[in-house]
Amino acid sequence: MTRKKLAECNCSLADAMNSLGTKWKPIIICAIGKKTLRFGSIAALIHIISRKVLTEQLKELVADGILLREEHKEVPPRVEYSLSAKGLELLPIFKQLETWEQKYKKCD
Amino acid sequence: MTRKKLAECNCSLADAMNSLGTKWKPIIICAIGKKTLRFGSIAALIHIISRKVLTEQLKELVADGILLREEHKEVPPRVEYSLSAKGLELLPIFKQLETWEQKYKKCD
Repeated sequence: MTRKKLAECNCSLADAMNSLGTKWKPIIICAIGKKTLRFGSIAALIHIISRKVLTEQLKELVADGILLREEHKEVPPRVEYSLSAKGLELLPIFKQLETWEQKYKKCD
Repeated sequence: MTRKKLAECNCSLADAMNSLGTKWKPIIICAIGKKTLRFGSIAALIHIISRKVLTEQLKELVADGILLREEHKEVPPRVEYSLSAKGLELLPIFKQLETWEQKYKKCD
């Protein structure tokens, strides 16, 4: 693999891991899946993440265009999260990572 | 998705991200690919990682069964790295992550 190709490979892969590199983001993406959820529901589903960390991760996922944040002008205001098209395309990739982990967990 | 299923999903996905979660590991795995390389060649290919960090990451990848480390009893001793079957199965998954990143990089 030439240095230039590797640089390209690194760059996209590194960028992808940069936006996904924390262990929480794939779990949040997996938990939301194809649903539209409010913060409280996401927090209840992934009880192992603190609300502070979840708030930060959701903000980053929205900034990266992986998650959509919709604010309904009601009293009190209602905010809902759902995966964007970009986010939805990650679900099958993460599914493969899960299967890979489960397959080799049995062998370890 | 029931809590139990999510716990399973989280656990494997979290385990997978735990063993892969740093941005370096996918890049190292991608750089080694289907080749057998010595430390120096890996370091030269991925010049953006310090030798200290690369040494730690290779050790973790070997401990996780993703990377094979072969020591040839020569003078001086020769050590070579190559991906295990477990490691090789990650290449197509990372390829999809790269394609995903490149696809949406054009749209951003």
